[in-house]
Amino acid sequence: MIGQMAKSLRTGEATCTQLTATALERLAANEPRLNAFICVLDEPARRRAAQLDSELASGLDRGPLHGIPIAIKDLIHLRGERTTAGSRLFDDFRASESAEVVDRLESAGAVIIGKTGLHEIAYGITSNNPHFGAVRNPRDTTRIPGGSSGGSGAAVAAGIVPVALGTDTGGSIRIPASFCGCVGLKPTYGRVSKRGVLPLGFSLDHIGPLSATVDDAAITLNAIAGHDSLDPTTSRRPVEDYRPGDSASLQGVRIGRPTTFYMERVAPGVRARIDAAFEAAAQSGAQIIPIETTEVEEWNAVARVVLLAEAAAALGPYLQYREGFGPDVLALLDQGRLVPATMYIQAQQLRTQLVDRARTLWRHVDCLFTPTTPTIAPEIGAVEIDVGGVNEDVRLATTRLVRGINLLGLPAISLPCGDAGGLPAGLQIIGPPFSEKRLLEVASALERAIVA
Amino acid sequence: MIGQMAKSLRTGEATCTQLTATALERLAANEPRLNAFICVLDEPARRRAAQLDSELASGLDRGPLHGIPIAIKDLIHLRGERTTAGSRLFDDFRASESAEVVDRLESAGAVIIGKTGLHEIAYGITSNNPHFGAVRNPRDTTRIPGGSSGGSGAAVAAGIVPVALGTDTGGSIRIPASFCGCVGLKPTYGRVSKRGVLPLGFSLDHIGPLSATVDDAAITLNAIAGHDSLDPTTSRRPVEDYRPGDSASLQGVRIGRPTTFYMERVAPGVRARIDAAFEAAAQSGAQIIPIETTEVEEWNAVARVVLLAEAAAALGPYLQYREGFGPDVLALLDQGRLVPATMYIQAQQLRTQLVDRARTLWRHVDCLFTPTTPTIAPEIGAVEIDVGGVNEDVRLATTRLVRGINLLGLPAISLPCGDAGGLPAGLQIIGPPFSEKRLLEVASALERAIVA
Repeated sequence: MIGQMAKSLRTGEATCTQLTATALERLAANEPRLNAFICVLDEPARRRAAQLDSELASGLDRGPLHGIPIAIKDLIHLRGERTTAGSRLFDDFRASESAEVVDRLESAGAVIIGKTGLHEIAYGITSNNPHFGAVRNPRDTTRIPGGSSGGSGAAVAAGIVPVALGTDTGGSIRIPASFCGCVGLKPTYGRVSKRGVLPLGFSLDHIGPLSATVDDAAITLNAIAGHDSLDPTTSRRPVEDYRPGDSASLQGVRIGRPTTFYMERVAPGVRARIDAAFEAAAQSGAQIIPIETTEVEEWNAVARVVLLAEAAAALGPYLQYREGFGPDVLALLDQGRLVPATMYIQAQQLRTQLVDRARTLWRHVDCLFTPTTPTIAPEIGAVEIDVGGVNEDVRLATTRLVRGINLLGLPAISLPCGDAGGLPAGLQIIGPPFSEKRLLEVASALERAIVA
Repeated sequence: MIGQMAKSLRTGEATCTQLTATALERLAANEPRLNAFICVLDEPARRRAAQLDSELASGLDRGPLHGIPIAIKDLIHLRGERTTAGSRLFDDFRASESAEVVDRLESAGAVIIGKTGLHEIAYGITSNNPHFGAVRNPRDTTRIPGGSSGGSGAAVAAGIVPVALGTDTGGSIRIPASFCGCVGLKPTYGRVSKRGVLPLGFSLDHIGPLSATVDDAAITLNAIAGHDSLDPTTSRRPVEDYRPGDSASLQGVRIGRPTTFYMERVAPGVRARIDAAFEAAAQSGAQIIPIETTEVEEWNAVARVVLLAEAAAALGPYLQYREGFGPDVLALLDQGRLVPATMYIQAQQLRTQLVDRARTLWRHVDCLFTPTTPTIAPEIGAVEIDVGGVNEDVRLATTRLVRGINLLGLPAISLPCGDAGGLPAGLQIIGPPFSEKRLLEVASALERAIVA
């Protein structure tokens, strides 16, 4: 999608100003039904687009993101603008500097048209925000868009922007991608700077794009990936050109098919779409290899302990303003305050062992396919959801297949893989550390195979 | 000292068997007054020494440690032998494999003659052990040898062995070196493998030698330093030849002289020895540069929180056997159980900032000289000690100048720098990460300057 927009800018079919105007119109038209944005940057975006038109006219071409309207989740700092993090506590907070990812996107030519709604402080998966109202799913506005990056998922799925940045601490990019039917990429831990983004769980937090297409995700990753000398958690490993190209193929790719956990307790409609994805991959020449993933429940358990404690540490200073929090987030923060350090330390030590053992997965396969979420998007307000005949807590069910990947810090993509009863199903593609390029190639080839 | 012993073995003046026999005799002669050993390896040591004599006779020369009798602290695993950690809980514990450092020392030809006494589970600085009795200071047996590696310090200071391994989580190598009057080296975090050593604070623990001379410490470091693929905390940075050689000089070395904290609240006798060390260094051509160390109290505070929590996590499984612990260690473990994870996480996050800011120290100086301990060795059983007219808790006073260095993971040497009222004073030499070679050169040159 960005590829076509970029082309239209250079053939004269469109201008940056027009692309931004169209995005702002769609935003305005959709906002009453979606509530996807906390802040719209109408004036600054139009001004920036006009500048970028002048640049293009004078021969200064910043590359594929030049003049492309995008959105960012409202816990990412944008210089001089409000960053609420979906919380009333930060109602008046204006950062004096943009997040590193914003600086990188802006120098790549992107036009930020607004800041998207989210689950309060990114600590939940419904995006049913007690302060800003529920964000709604564009495919069915009685449903949640997922979260915590719900506004980003809704903005992309509604066709407002081709890309919106999200953050993912326990599935918060992949879940809305799955529920809204767009692409969501959580890069390897350390691949993208987190400087200037409100922390939730510092050892689990990731930043990445939700996007219309796999190529759009790759273009965005090209702009934001790489070492940041002011973020000590970023890797010095060289970046690659992540765009998959038209020749990306599944020929000979070894895809792991979990025989345990990931395919258990999945709604039949979703399961059928995942089975179809495996079939499409096999028909495109991939080798499907059954694989046991026996420790996923331990990954999840350890990730929950780590997040409870880290979130309470990050938000602790604000816990004196108890009335400032919604009940679900307050309960999690209160729980986190009670985690003893010994438990956190044991969790982190167990984590190093789990990470070590998980390396053996990649001896036999290049990537793993799983469902992203075991169900389609639940109704807004639902506490429980039917997962193939069994009622399960919405939060636990929705994070069950994604949370552990944050513990391991692995890259993962959620790719739309067809409709399951009128709403999208998401396929999660997981790979070894720093395998983003391969994962995007696989996702791109599959995107074509599934559409075809 | 090892250098002379090694020479005597090769000129035929001595045999490995004789060196080991002499060491075992001295051990036996001293043990009634010092109580420095938990376990004596009489038979295995003599057997090993005889083997090493045969090897030398047949031309197999393992280098400077070949046939040298040494001791190891009794929380370091030695295959098939007891490792008590100074605790009744581990009375019957026999490791099936030796610690990595033991394997390395043995393949370098060292003969382990015994395992030394320590503060219970290495969690304290008196080595007044409720289960095995008080280890005594060879310079004055009414005094503590310091700890937790008190037996190692006593064994070296009494001339039983030229080297004994210790561990250092908050000063436990440097303190007994200072109180007993021997050299103590805590290498950079990650320079030496900790595999096979009972953990106390996994992010603060270090292993290193207590030794008769600086050269002995360097010879030992040569044997034990380097990456261990089974200890993920070890560094892949190449090792160096750490022996200083006779030409090591202070000419042009920039030595930081703290104007704050380190020289405040120091007993006058100790202070005089440290001042004399600065003078000796200056006369040998070093440049003395006043330097502000403003954050040492924060280093200590953060290190205490981290250790409380990590020790409680490491020993947690044994806390059900409350009667198995002495009262001081039990109190610390109980305290540690109550540290909330949020506090530990905040401490670790503050630590990354403190480590980062401490880097600026090395812009202007190559190393820092401080006292190792603010006093000479206290009396056994003393709870408070007079530090220049002010009474201070023995544990707090004794760890005050060393603990922060574990938080930063920096290498540090304690070097005897003369007598302060009949008992030794220790000079602490601190350097940037992985500066062991430089520190050993400085210490070696100063060792000559102070003796001369």
